[in-house]
Amino acid sequence: MTVFDSGLEDAIQAVREDVSALHGELVRNGLVIWTGGNVSGRVPGADLFVIKPSGVAYDDLAPENMILCDLDGAVIAGTPGSERSPSSDTAAHAYVYRNMPEVGGVVHTHSDYATAWAARGEEIPCVITAMADEFGGPIPVGPFAIIGDDSIGRGIVETLSGHRSRAVLMANHGPFTIGRDARDAVKAAVMVEDVARTVHIARQGGPLIPLAQEAIDSLFTRYQNVYGQAPQGAIA
Amino acid sequence: MTVFDSGLEDAIQAVREDVSALHGELVRNGLVIWTGGNVSGRVPGADLFVIKPSGVAYDDLAPENMILCDLDGAVIAGTPGSERSPSSDTAAHAYVYRNMPEVGGVVHTHSDYATAWAARGEEIPCVITAMADEFGGPIPVGPFAIIGDDSIGRGIVETLSGHRSRAVLMANHGPFTIGRDARDAVKAAVMVEDVARTVHIARQGGPLIPLAQEAIDSLFTRYQNVYGQAPQGAIA
Amino acid sequence: MTVFDSGLEDAIQAVREDVSALHGELVRNGLVIWTGGNVSGRVPGADLFVIKPSGVAYDDLAPENMILCDLDGAVIAGTPGSERSPSSDTAAHAYVYRNMPEVGGVVHTHSDYATAWAARGEEIPCVITAMADEFGGPIPVGPFAIIGDDSIGRGIVETLSGHRSRAVLMANHGPFTIGRDARDAVKAAVMVEDVARTVHIARQGGPLIPLAQEAIDSLFTRYQNVYGQAPQGAIA
Amino acid sequence: MTVFDSGLEDAIQAVREDVSALHGELVRNGLVIWTGGNVSGRVPGADLFVIKPSGVAYDDLAPENMILCDLDGAVIAGTPGSERSPSSDTAAHAYVYRNMPEVGGVVHTHSDYATAWAARGEEIPCVITAMADEFGGPIPVGPFAIIGDDSIGRGIVETLSGHRSRAVLMANHGPFTIGRDARDAVKAAVMVEDVARTVHIARQGGPLIPLAQEAIDSLFTRYQNVYGQAPQGAIA
Repeated sequence: MTVFDSGLEDAIQAVREDVSALHGELVRNGLVIWTGGNVSGRVPGADLFVIKPSGVAYDDLAPENMILCDLDGAVIAGTPGSERSPSSDTAAHAYVYRNMPEVGGVVHTHSDYATAWAARGEEIPCVITAMADEFGGPIPVGPFAIIGDDSIGRGIVETLSGHRSRAVLMANHGPFTIGRDARDAVKAAVMVEDVARTVHIARQGGPLIPLAQEAIDSLFTRYQNVYGQAPQGAIA
Repeated sequence: MTVFDSGLEDAIQAVREDVSALHGELVRNGLVIWTGGNVSGRVPGADLFVIKPSGVAYDDLAPENMILCDLDGAVIAGTPGSERSPSSDTAAHAYVYRNMPEVGGVVHTHSDYATAWAARGEEIPCVITAMADEFGGPIPVGPFAIIGDDSIGRGIVETLSGHRSRAVLMANHGPFTIGRDARDAVKAAVMVEDVARTVHIARQGGPLIPLAQEAIDSLFTRYQNVYGQAPQGAIA
Repeated sequence: MTVFDSGLEDAIQAVREDVSALHGELVRNGLVIWTGGNVSGRVPGADLFVIKPSGVAYDDLAPENMILCDLDGAVIAGTPGSERSPSSDTAAHAYVYRNMPEVGGVVHTHSDYATAWAARGEEIPCVITAMADEFGGPIPVGPFAIIGDDSIGRGIVETLSGHRSRAVLMANHGPFTIGRDARDAVKAAVMVEDVARTVHIARQGGPLIPLAQEAIDSLFTRYQNVYGQAPQGAIA
Repeated sequence: MTVFDSGLEDAIQAVREDVSALHGELVRNGLVIWTGGNVSGRVPGADLFVIKPSGVAYDDLAPENMILCDLDGAVIAGTPGSERSPSSDTAAHAYVYRNMPEVGGVVHTHSDYATAWAARGEEIPCVITAMADEFGGPIPVGPFAIIGDDSIGRGIVETLSGHRSRAVLMANHGPFTIGRDARDAVKAAVMVEDVARTVHIARQGGPLIPLAQEAIDSLFTRYQNVYGQAPQGAIA
């Protein structure tokens, strides 16, 4: 059995518990069906992350069957869960962690409305204040990329680097979101589906009122700095 | 610790319990996600109101972490919950209580269909009897207003003063509702989303039959006076 | 206290339990919000029916607060629940029971998709086999009728008499359904919303394939006679 | 009482438990209302399958009231549940088992979005990667077929034989899905509704980006061979 020093073991265990529990938020918010969707979280202070096993029912997820990987996406042998295959999107998560050191969590779903925008390859325009608060502008579209090599990860990183948005709509595929930790990335996954739905419905009814860039900037800056309870972090 | 006389303490406690529990109705009716949305209630007979803390999960809300504020939106130091920041919409709630003495409850959500009408800046036409009953006519649109000063509160008050509707769609933002108490304002928040959805769906299918003003007036008058159980109040 | 002979007391109690429980199906199927919607059931062998009280929360409904009425809609004094006001739609239910002796249950909701068709005054065309099975053709529209006299009841009876459909879309108002008992009327309320939704969505995507009248007739006849378990009745 | 050898009894019991429990997945995923929809599963190694009784409430389903049939759809007398009528779609399930020996499970629902495509007789184009993974191309439309003889079964078999898709949209009726066992067919029923909804919503917003055939082929091949946990089978 692979053994880490006890501080690192505690950090890994905390991320296992977080990542396992956060999958429940995907279900509760209607973002996933069957075994689709996945959450991962970086282990603070180590080149490791924790991710869901592939094709396992949501009811069967538990901290001890989450899978520990290095930043190349290789399973760490001899750790709990390592006898299973990790999520088929593991390579994309690993690529993000390797190339965006500020990212502590990654989420992928096929939530319906966000995926609908992705099927048209159309960014979601920023026309409501909740979207300005959370994403600071439109939700961008990433390239079409086939699963199985680094092309999904590269598409995510190229689209989101230097962008305010923590969500990208991968063309013909669905949303990937990032955050400073797994919870923050899950929040972005919940919010991107909500704004995708609201803006879709709005536009079905007629032309939208644009939000001025100045208003978007002001809302984004305030929300990132003022909202929430200070001791728990600015956004959570 | 701030201490009020026991009658006022009881009144405050009752509002804390009400406001805390009513947030559950926002969740149950699908009006909010994550930590979005807020309910407040005026303390009868005092220049005080109780509101949700900012950015706290719905599962963690309890009477003792609701926050007591004066009518300028300042937290009353030394009361339960006062170590936290109140909802970032507190200034808007306070403005309404200062300027509409008949209002005992205020609710704000980003519910999807109501927010969709708001993103177009379009009032919801009164074409169904349930809407005539509850709102007595169309749901009006309020101005676009940036968070952080009195402009949201002013927009709500200017739009709803002298209007039958207890709901306003703040442009590019979402619905605010008022009521004689917090429960009544939550009911309006539930109903405005329902009529926003029904009328949206109706109009996607073709032209709507208008309701005659005379029919609207008759329905509104009857509902405000006859519906429900007399001892529990005409509307609740 | 009003006392009936014991056989009638048992029959009344059975209907109270049925009608109370069946309101839960309206909630479970997403047909109602807040205190909207109502179910009633005729007491077999008597000129009496049981209906929901007005404006009471769904969680608070129980057999003993259902209200017993005669076929003019008058509350039977001295019976459980008689201290409260019955549903504001009681006159319409009573009119149906007086004029359609074969009807044993009536349901009214403002379910979203059915009400959307009603807001356009447009019948739902019969283009799917489930609708032919259950309703034997299109769902008809009834006249606009103001609450407070017999005009809603008259509109229901005139539209549904001699019609295969157990559902009518009252213009600008919403669906009323009838059945051989309260459960059968609730089933029709569930099914009319489902077909209203499916046919709405279908038509948003393009032209529909008509169902031949001969196919509709054949499906309706078979379903009314063959479906389900014989001892429990042909439809339930 | 009909008695089989104990190995076969165990196999039958296992399928009864599976089929009964899997009906809960139809409810949980919002694919069915009231008593609509049905799941069946072939008994491995025997010319038998297990199916839901007709018109029984989902809450009342249990392993012992599932019904055992031969491959002509005849109920096996003297087995648990044999006093009831099987699903009115039993003949269609039986036809599939007789003619597609590789099929171990069949599911039928009237789920809203899939049925909407069926009401237009329009196949669902393959424009999202989840659909390429699961179905390997478009979801085909089957002929309009009246219930009561082999025409539904024949339509399913003719449409799906040699097709990658495990789902067919029977015109003006709704989806039927097949799988290597009942669970696999239920997964296909869940996925076909999800892709029907996502592609519907996508197309309401404007033109879709086609997926190249080469990309579809690559996604389908990988998913059928790599996804999930090897010991539990490639797809489940």
